[in-house]
Amino acid sequence: MSDCIFCKITQKQAPASIVYEDNQVAAFLSHRPVNIGHTLVVPKRHYENIYEIPEEEAAYLFKIAKRLTLAIKNATGIEAIRLVQNNGKDAGQVVFHLHVHIIPMKPHNHFTYENIARAPALLELDAQKIRQNLE
Amino acid sequence: MSDCIFCKITQKQAPASIVYEDNQVAAFLSHRPVNIGHTLVVPKRHYENIYEIPEEEAAYLFKIAKRLTLAIKNATGIEAIRLVQNNGKDAGQVVFHLHVHIIPMKPHNHFTYENIARAPALLELDAQKIRQNLE
Repeated sequence: MSDCIFCKITQKQAPASIVYEDNQVAAFLSHRPVNIGHTLVVPKRHYENIYEIPEEEAAYLFKIAKRLTLAIKNATGIEAIRLVQNNGKDAGQVVFHLHVHIIPMKPHNHFTYENIARAPALLELDAQKIRQNLE
Repeated sequence: MSDCIFCKITQKQAPASIVYEDNQVAAFLSHRPVNIGHTLVVPKRHYENIYEIPEEEAAYLFKIAKRLTLAIKNATGIEAIRLVQNNGKDAGQVVFHLHVHIIPMKPHNHFTYENIARAPALLELDAQKIRQNLE
């Protein structure tokens, strides 16, 4: 989709700190993370939500999300991590390209999130650390 | 694990309204749903969290969660659905047997949940409807 920001990111037409990439899936850091390491995992093919994606592609997306979750725990030292995948506006979906949030959680995030913009240079350092923990 | 409520449910030693079951995975309704249709998907094998489960088993768990999400949307008529998977107390994990929440969302749930106990007989009717939508 030509006007989709996540399609632009996976096609390298928009900037993002990439933590993982293969033929099917890409993962990059949220530029307004709940905490350091807040990552979004997306299928490269454009699906609006979980209803649209074929089962095998959903399985693969979450397999990679599981792998990343462990790497993010090790990279950030934050033991608690929440995975969230929102479908539809009433569920809090804002970008209509299917994505899985991997959110390192501190005690105060338990019920409310506070997304704080993080400088691109810092995001790049965060991404490096996660990539090292994927090796 | 002998004292794990989700192990007891999958072994039929504790009651629950089952919406799906196979050799590896079970899904049942939350008895304190955020909305009608709030379902928990678990691996039958006991893993505390996403860190512990092997990748292929995680992929399968979420493949079934994806299938159930569509059935729950169709059964409840609620278009917006949030998937949540909490790891660790600070992420809001309460039962320490890996589980995926499938949560039909109304506009007022966007930022806060209100879990309300639902009578077992009503849960059973909810489960029937979801099972019919899986066929």
